[in-house]
Amino acid sequence: MSGIFADRTTINSENRLAEMFGGNLGKDGIKFSAGNPDPELFPVTQIKKAFNNAINEYGNQIFEYQTISGFKKLRNYLAQRTIHTEDIKATANNILITQGGQQALDLISKLFLNNGDGIVVEAPTYVGALSAFEQYNPCYYDVTLKEDGLDLEQLELLLQAHPDIKLLYTIPDFQNPTGVTLSLNKRKKLVKLAEEYDFFILEDTPYRDLRYKGSRLPSIKSFDHHGHVIFVSSFSKILMPGLRIGWITADKSIIDQLSKLKASSDLETSGILLTALNQYIEDNNLDTHIVEMLPIYQKRLVTMLEVLDEKMPADVHYTRPEGGFFIWLTLPDVIDTQKLLNETCIPKDRISFVPGKVFYAHKNRRNSIRLNFSGVNEKQIKIGISKLAKSIESVITANKVETLL
Amino acid sequence: MSGIFADRTTINSENRLAEMFGGNLGKDGIKFSAGNPDPELFPVTQIKKAFNNAINEYGNQIFEYQTISGFKKLRNYLAQRTIHTEDIKATANNILITQGGQQALDLISKLFLNNGDGIVVEAPTYVGALSAFEQYNPCYYDVTLKEDGLDLEQLELLLQAHPDIKLLYTIPDFQNPTGVTLSLNKRKKLVKLAEEYDFFILEDTPYRDLRYKGSRLPSIKSFDHHGHVIFVSSFSKILMPGLRIGWITADKSIIDQLSKLKASSDLETSGILLTALNQYIEDNNLDTHIVEMLPIYQKRLVTMLEVLDEKMPADVHYTRPEGGFFIWLTLPDVIDTQKLLNETCIPKDRISFVPGKVFYAHKNRRNSIRLNFSGVNEKQIKIGISKLAKSIESVITANKVETLL
Repeated sequence: MSGIFADRTTINSENRLAEMFGGNLGKDGIKFSAGNPDPELFPVTQIKKAFNNAINEYGNQIFEYQTISGFKKLRNYLAQRTIHTEDIKATANNILITQGGQQALDLISKLFLNNGDGIVVEAPTYVGALSAFEQYNPCYYDVTLKEDGLDLEQLELLLQAHPDIKLLYTIPDFQNPTGVTLSLNKRKKLVKLAEEYDFFILEDTPYRDLRYKGSRLPSIKSFDHHGHVIFVSSFSKILMPGLRIGWITADKSIIDQLSKLKASSDLETSGILLTALNQYIEDNNLDTHIVEMLPIYQKRLVTMLEVLDEKMPADVHYTRPEGGFFIWLTLPDVIDTQKLLNETCIPKDRISFVPGKVFYAHKNRRNSIRLNFSGVNEKQIKIGISKLAKSIESVITANKVETLL
Repeated sequence: MSGIFADRTTINSENRLAEMFGGNLGKDGIKFSAGNPDPELFPVTQIKKAFNNAINEYGNQIFEYQTISGFKKLRNYLAQRTIHTEDIKATANNILITQGGQQALDLISKLFLNNGDGIVVEAPTYVGALSAFEQYNPCYYDVTLKEDGLDLEQLELLLQAHPDIKLLYTIPDFQNPTGVTLSLNKRKKLVKLAEEYDFFILEDTPYRDLRYKGSRLPSIKSFDHHGHVIFVSSFSKILMPGLRIGWITADKSIIDQLSKLKASSDLETSGILLTALNQYIEDNNLDTHIVEMLPIYQKRLVTMLEVLDEKMPADVHYTRPEGGFFIWLTLPDVIDTQKLLNETCIPKDRISFVPGKVFYAHKNRRNSIRLNFSGVNEKQIKIGISKLAKSIESVITANKVETLL
């Protein structure tokens, strides 16, 4: 029965997501490889109460089949929140609830991508997005990420050369994996390009509310007047990932199409989860919860940057994010960070990170590292980053010696 | 931006699932169109307790990211249950938890179907399965459903003519929409055909445990010794649909491929749901719960058959299921049941059913009706089916008059 699987499974065979997670670090190991919020910050007591209250209020009804697009009260809340915090016009009809942000990416890919269709992605970009897109065999065009986000000159040349490009995927705020934020001017310009070259922008914003410094920038979608932007967000980083709840905000015509695909993919998201989440939001203040988390993550970010500044060799460069979960390290070209991870960091230092190559559509760059700071405490950061710096220094020195020889 | 969507959206444009549900019936309307279990039978108190116990026991851990394949204890339970009730060898590694049966169908389609690949379906078959398959633009081959299931002679001719057929989809027990059950001999023969013609059988079993009469038949998968059968089931009908939890049982090599696609599609199913479900199963007896529901559904089925026997015109034929949720009516060829529904049953009788055409891959038959008996009580059945019989009689008579004129 060889060859019986669809073509997409061969493309998928590299299994990007599985590659992300390092080997066994043992009890004292320090994981900089994760992408998760700190579970100590989850409002477990309030969520437990929310499940109870939701079941008490709605009884057996919430265990029946519900609606494809998701619990109306929750969609109303999300629409209101979108209006107030994002300056985007929205009603419940502009919202589709999804199984976390990941399903949003899957459904949007399903909606747009025929085999071989063009999609622009940042280089580097979120590995889970690549994994979603690859199910539909797209043609990737990657655009360099600068300190202020996408290189728009490079993008425009691409758009001129490939008028078939349908979709552009970007994480404008504290990007995963780099922590980079797209500048205000570039946000405006990007929407103009979408109008001129007739493509859709998939604006993915899981970290948007987790800013520790500087001022919030308007979303790309807030500049969109002709329906070219599809805005995706999630409760995974601001509340808890285990609920698996995200949402899409877009023109009704797009939401209607996506809802049909959602129905065919999994019918609907669990009513009990959505009702409980809505109950949590009614009984608590989500924004207060977010604000309370900020100083904790901020301190971890500041600590990590301090240790990096102090310990890293001069030829290692890194981003200085204003929010999110990640810092991105660029090592000298000759260093293969996968090798560094497997040969030194995991077995000797018992620390993990994600080697940069998995974040490139074409996997052609091997000298970068994604570090997570949200899931580790300051002590772990100090110990772990010091070890990492030492190991990087050794491999740079060894390499220089080799070159001299 | 016309034509910007993927081809699958045009094919999907008929929106099979949306077509299923009739218009507004008002307060006293009687819905034979649903496909749901009776919410009065949901063990809400026990499930509420299970959520509490799960959160008490596992705390914030269950709100973190979990594993792609789903909570290990639950997969262990499902593997044990599969061994004991189905005589199928299985460990947790043979199980993938999905968002209800619907996601199982989506993932299996994703795994096998390239554009234009051949898939055999029953005529008629489950509309949600068609809706899942159509996302991948397959080539449908349909096989007539007889009183004892698939017409295997017709199937074998198809297999000879189309060696490219990859997949066959069947609901062997109390099929949706017909209530028909595949005979024992045909189950064995089907596996032999799969081995001979090298295709996979997708055995979908949501109603399997809901038998009200006669003896349980072995699953198709229990005759499978070379990994040709993928067994799908769900908690939606035997417990509650709102949990959105189903599972796939298959060879590890298939489960591994499906898990990758699951990760790319929605990462994982919510940990809190799976832990709570597992808690329910640990603290209660699922099989006892199922056994307690059987006489209630049985009585509804018996009542519906009695009223049909008493009231239906002689040229209306119907199935006599031994389990499940549905009875299938075949009217004289000339009657269009969609028209009957829209013009008479909804506006005048205030009853709904699903017109048979949505259950055909090619939508070429218009004279059948799916009736649900699980979501209505005996009084509703007596009133509603009497009205339906009268309306059918009128349309048959009118039609005869027309023919005479």
